[in-house]
Amino acid sequence: MHLNKLLFVFILSSCLSLACVQAKVHYHKWDITYQYKSPDCFNKLAITINGQTPGPTIYASQGDTIVVEVKNSLLTENTAIHWHGIRQIGTPWMDGTEGVTQCPILPGDTFTYRFVVDRPGTYIYHSHYGMQRSAGLNGMIVVKVPEGFPEPFTYDREYNILLNDWWHNSTNDQAAGLLMPENQFKFVGEPQSLLMNGRGRFNCSLAANGNCNASYIECAPLTLTVVPGKTYLLRIASITSLSALNFEIEGHSLTVVEADSHYVDPFVVKNLNIYSGETYSVILKADQDPIRNYWLASNVVGRKPGTPTGTGLLNYYGIPRGRHPPTAPPTGPLWNNTYYRMQQSWATRAHPNFIEPPPVKSDRVIILLNTQNRIDGITRWSLNNVSHDLPHTPYLIALKNNLHHVFEQKPPPETYDIKNYDINVPPPNRNATRSTSIYKLEFGSVVDVILQNANTLTANNSETHPWHLHGHDFWVLGSGLGKFDPETDPKNYNLKDPILKNNVALQTSGWTAIRFKANNPGVWAFHCHIESHFFMGMGIVFEEGVDRLGKLPNSIMGCGKSKLGN
Amino acid sequence: MHLNKLLFVFILSSCLSLACVQAKVHYHKWDITYQYKSPDCFNKLAITINGQTPGPTIYASQGDTIVVEVKNSLLTENTAIHWHGIRQIGTPWMDGTEGVTQCPILPGDTFTYRFVVDRPGTYIYHSHYGMQRSAGLNGMIVVKVPEGFPEPFTYDREYNILLNDWWHNSTNDQAAGLLMPENQFKFVGEPQSLLMNGRGRFNCSLAANGNCNASYIECAPLTLTVVPGKTYLLRIASITSLSALNFEIEGHSLTVVEADSHYVDPFVVKNLNIYSGETYSVILKADQDPIRNYWLASNVVGRKPGTPTGTGLLNYYGIPRGRHPPTAPPTGPLWNNTYYRMQQSWATRAHPNFIEPPPVKSDRVIILLNTQNRIDGITRWSLNNVSHDLPHTPYLIALKNNLHHVFEQKPPPETYDIKNYDINVPPPNRNATRSTSIYKLEFGSVVDVILQNANTLTANNSETHPWHLHGHDFWVLGSGLGKFDPETDPKNYNLKDPILKNNVALQTSGWTAIRFKANNPGVWAFHCHIESHFFMGMGIVFEEGVDRLGKLPNSIMGCGKSKLGN
Repeated sequence: MHLNKLLFVFILSSCLSLACVQAKVHYHKWDITYQYKSPDCFNKLAITINGQTPGPTIYASQGDTIVVEVKNSLLTENTAIHWHGIRQIGTPWMDGTEGVTQCPILPGDTFTYRFVVDRPGTYIYHSHYGMQRSAGLNGMIVVKVPEGFPEPFTYDREYNILLNDWWHNSTNDQAAGLLMPENQFKFVGEPQSLLMNGRGRFNCSLAANGNCNASYIECAPLTLTVVPGKTYLLRIASITSLSALNFEIEGHSLTVVEADSHYVDPFVVKNLNIYSGETYSVILKADQDPIRNYWLASNVVGRKPGTPTGTGLLNYYGIPRGRHPPTAPPTGPLWNNTYYRMQQSWATRAHPNFIEPPPVKSDRVIILLNTQNRIDGITRWSLNNVSHDLPHTPYLIALKNNLHHVFEQKPPPETYDIKNYDINVPPPNRNATRSTSIYKLEFGSVVDVILQNANTLTANNSETHPWHLHGHDFWVLGSGLGKFDPETDPKNYNLKDPILKNNVALQTSGWTAIRFKANNPGVWAFHCHIESHFFMGMGIVFEEGVDRLGKLPNSIMGCGKSKLGN
Repeated sequence: MHLNKLLFVFILSSCLSLACVQAKVHYHKWDITYQYKSPDCFNKLAITINGQTPGPTIYASQGDTIVVEVKNSLLTENTAIHWHGIRQIGTPWMDGTEGVTQCPILPGDTFTYRFVVDRPGTYIYHSHYGMQRSAGLNGMIVVKVPEGFPEPFTYDREYNILLNDWWHNSTNDQAAGLLMPENQFKFVGEPQSLLMNGRGRFNCSLAANGNCNASYIECAPLTLTVVPGKTYLLRIASITSLSALNFEIEGHSLTVVEADSHYVDPFVVKNLNIYSGETYSVILKADQDPIRNYWLASNVVGRKPGTPTGTGLLNYYGIPRGRHPPTAPPTGPLWNNTYYRMQQSWATRAHPNFIEPPPVKSDRVIILLNTQNRIDGITRWSLNNVSHDLPHTPYLIALKNNLHHVFEQKPPPETYDIKNYDINVPPPNRNATRSTSIYKLEFGSVVDVILQNANTLTANNSETHPWHLHGHDFWVLGSGLGKFDPETDPKNYNLKDPILKNNVALQTSGWTAIRFKANNPGVWAFHCHIESHFFMGMGIVFEEGVDRLGKLPNSIMGCGKSKLGN
């Protein structure tokens, strides 16, 4: 494939003073194709951007506009790209969420995404269609603070680290397995490898045919070179399909300074728990003995690990880059120490100088019981016993054009039977409803969502769910183990300095409470960021202020009831 | 997956006399899904119809209407179904050719095909999108003569035999291999197995993991039970992706009575050469010693075979069904005996009682040099050095709605440099043009097309190309080895009793001449029926009388410039 990446930078606003901020437009041309790639030394088809997986990192400064012309050169598959963490204020049709904000981009078609990055920080992009994210269609967005605007921390240089998990079978294989009836149900299973910036290391002796070669340059380990005594900002993002991860740099502590692009009251960790869809910035000081290299290590947590530690190298300048440390890579904390991971969540609070206080009360509380169910023999995930299906005509088009018949109009339930439901046993009613229904929010209202975890269909099992909200940041008011009590738990909400995030973990058998303002006109998905869980219905959709939007762009149309002549 | 096949039969026309013909409407509901299947004992994902590959056989009688509601339950892939051999008179938008007659059917969408089968015979259906046909999305259509209308042959019972070749890698893998640049180019390679009615037999000892099991019921061999002395009509169709086949029933001669649904002046063969997209009916008499079973055998011809003989069983009633014959399966004629195969073509002439004489002269002659080329490092197939690309807005929509900018308006070349081009060496100019241009035909005119084969990019190599025309039958006027001579060869055209077909082989280093009337308003593909060759540009498109068509159905829209608001 020809790499026709193109990057022009235009200066939009002329400048009248030296201190002014210049908003720029960054143009990118992407060609989406299947290519044989070997991220973990095993050669397989991946979905690539300009031949790469992960795709190229997008760089911009706060206030800039990003334009990405996405040409779909897949053969029979559509696609759509979501800009994860970007709120798309005023451009809800650019959110890239197939079925919610746009029709998919057909093979041969080019869709131009254009949006403003209004906040500095670290973001992700990825396909939001089927399970294509898992096939390699993902990457990072780095939005810098404007020149001359100080950050509440200092560093000499920065590095990006995109964490992922990786499978050797195709997403078609995975999806077919998930859709099998109960008696043949195939779990996606554990990933074969953990990747850092698209590089991992599968044990090729386990590969049957000649598809694996440890000397492929594509699977050379990620190596970060540091100069002794210098300080580094590491922008760490997780785009895993399944795994909750723990990231560690052997022998070095990390100071957490940013979470989901919001400044954090700094705190020090030995290692960082990071869930799919989250981004963190940490400060690393190269303060260890510089006569050797040190391991970067990524380990599965929250679920019994079936995947070897993902590794990279922290290379002290002067030491040969590829030289392995004399030690074994860190294996991370105990995978099932939920309390350890909750401590990190509780420590993640807004930086004192950057507190945006939440409204003291909410207008509406939606409580979502997270259960695994079985509908017509197919395993699904549900919220309050409703398993979500995407409509064929995207909600944004349907709502704006008053196509009421293309999705279920009856609203989904606001809560579950809190009093009687036992979250520690498999659901007594394994059945659930599949529905395309959505939550309509009063524009400008304040909404609380309580995520309540529960036992899956398997006895003594509960899974971690990283929940991601499109179009908004939310305040993380609290979380705990066990069942949320609507009477007592809200009294302990952190209303003083809660962190704003767009992604938050719901721990096994626990609950998490968030609050947000419904002030961004559009239609927004809120879902578990585990690729297979959303695919199996684990999400809801919010609508707010669609009547305030102007004409929708023609480019998002074409599917369902949005064909020419409708 | 739930099999929700539904078949209703409605009587359309009431009947005023006993001899009248009742036109019926046959309703089918199809759900297209990926399923794990084991056609040749190797378990892999296939694209299925209601869980089956091949899909269900559609039965109808001449004049009936077939309605198929196709629900696309693939996850990220579109589809479109072509009704191969059905001329779609008055319904060109139901031809199912993505990019030509319709936009693809998106995941979650249901497209209703509705068309009349106006001629009795044997037809095929298959995906006409990307290389999905190869993934299993295909099947047969049998259109019977109306009750009481005699056929020019008799038989006691009939059987259908759908021949195919089968690969173990995915079509994504195959396509990615074909799109690789010259230095990494991967041919699709030879198929792993040959199938009869979706049943073959891979040598499981060659399969690396536990994915292959010779005892899977899905790969039990096709077994046709016959009663000694009885006569059988075998409807044989080939839906191969690549292979030209030779079909033989050990020890039995076959009388060819029909080709592409046209009656043939009967002739007897020891075995039948059949190219992808062709259908034949042959008469088999169960006249051999009934104390044993006999092999059905399918062998690759026209290309050095790299695939074992595909086998089935002719079971004489009374002999155990599964009992193998005491002999080895027939291995077919010499694969490179082109003359042997041409003899069959020459013998295939219209039945004396059913001759539809061709017009004695044509209004236009288009000569198409078939070459393999390399464009920007990618291997392609070309006609007169033009390699065809499908536009993103289907031609039918573009032409009817006057969207002139969505495809190349300059017409493609009518001929090549006949005088100087040496068809026996690789093309001196390996480059070619990629174009979406089409041939516009005067409505009602008579068109000759001369297909001229040539050497591929490999020295001393020419490949067989089975050419298929949509929307029409054509007369096969002649064929020969070497270079067609426009002065002398037309003098030897068979204008007396040429067979009408919709699919014809262009033999290695040979030529084939056809004639048809451009009298079916619509836009029609004419292409090599080898899945990968069409994918690589080996086709052209004819337009005729689109101005005579009424409003196009909304259901074919949605892609390119046919979105809501365009």
